Amino acid sequence: MIGSDNDAINARHRERTRQHKVAVDKRIAAATQDKGLLLVITGNGKGKSSSAFGMVARTLGYGHKAAVFQFIKGKEEVGERAFFARDPNMRWERCGEGFTWETQDRDRDIAAARAGWEKAKEALADPSIHLVVLDELTYLVTYRYLSLEEIMPAIAARPPMQHVVITGRAAHDDFIAAADTVSAIRDVKHAFRAGIRAQQGIDL
Amino acid sequence: MIGSDNDAINARHRERTRQHKVAVDKRIAAATQDKGLLLVITGNGKGKSSSAFGMVARTLGYGHKAAVFQFIKGKEEVGERAFFARDPNMRWERCGEGFTWETQDRDRDIAAARAGWEKAKEALADPSIHLVVLDELTYLVTYRYLSLEEIMPAIAARPPMQHVVITGRAAHDDFIAAADTVSAIRDVKHAFRAGIRAQQGIDL
Repeated sequence: MIGSDNDAINARHRERTRQHKVAVDKRIAAATQDKGLLLVITGNGKGKSSSAFGMVARTLGYGHKAAVFQFIKGKEEVGERAFFARDPNMRWERCGEGFTWETQDRDRDIAAARAGWEKAKEALADPSIHLVVLDELTYLVTYRYLSLEEIMPAIAARPPMQHVVITGRAAHDDFIAAADTVSAIRDVKHAFRAGIRAQQGIDL
Repeated sequence: MIGSDNDAINARHRERTRQHKVAVDKRIAAATQDKGLLLVITGNGKGKSSSAFGMVARTLGYGHKAAVFQFIKGKEEVGERAFFARDPNMRWERCGEGFTWETQDRDRDIAAARAGWEKAKEALADPSIHLVVLDELTYLVTYRYLSLEEIMPAIAARPPMQHVVITGRAAHDDFIAAADTVSAIRDVKHAFRAGIRAQQGIDL
């Protein structure tokens, strides 16, 4: 009895999954284009930069070049940088000295943002770079340290197969509109609010 | 005139950011505990596994050990595995052969899930492993290949400083309840729906 019950379950499973595979395969067959993607990872939840760095790992895994520009991060976050620095295909630029409330110096923040953006623009014009991560770029627009008129044309004019990931909270609508893929990370729960400080390997 | 305007803006900026820093520093000072975190990265949007792999990079960057158990992924996703395999502190186990509609064989899927879970349990009992990623574990609960009664005690009994990341859509409420940090990734836009297939370095 139990054996035949299981056989019946398995038969139903086979038929249901077969049908599902037909539908999935059809969708996959419809997706035939290759394109350098613009991805925006926004929202207040944990995982925006982590997600971009996961794509950096994938890119380097294929032997492609990747470039990361960190526009805000202060000096504490070292785990990922230490790791990726081992790869000769990796370029890692820290363009900021921390959040505005850390530096408390608007002119210095703007100068750092502009200098960082000049470097990022070079990467956005270099077809040998497969992936460019503009980490926490959204804040520069929010703070008006850089204008969209400066940013969007450089992204639009990049090499056709180059992928770009923009991370940061509150991504401007123009980033969303221009993007191929947008993920919004909702902060459902965060250990920090329970009194747990940033943990090595997880947050920094 | 312009110079003094800018001085006024900068003065307001300094005062505003100083006040903000006081508030942020207070919150940071209140977060004093260290703890092995349980993180759940769920939702339908892109970036769940990528985010976990970003934390793997951070962990390895500190010279800590990390273990990844991929419960679903098929054979195509190779970028991240190729990259992380270079690090002697990395353990990478593929425990599934693809989504249910690929294998269409429920008994084989269950056997693969159980064999994978036995290996993951070893990692969850090993205090030398700093981070354990249970990639796409949520589906095993959804499909009833593994029960929460098997999973939750092993996670709860892990070494106190070990971090665990669970990824996958539709995380069961018990995962959410047990977690320290939960991010839900909303799929705002996805290139796949515009006819663009999975791209190296981004999706695989």
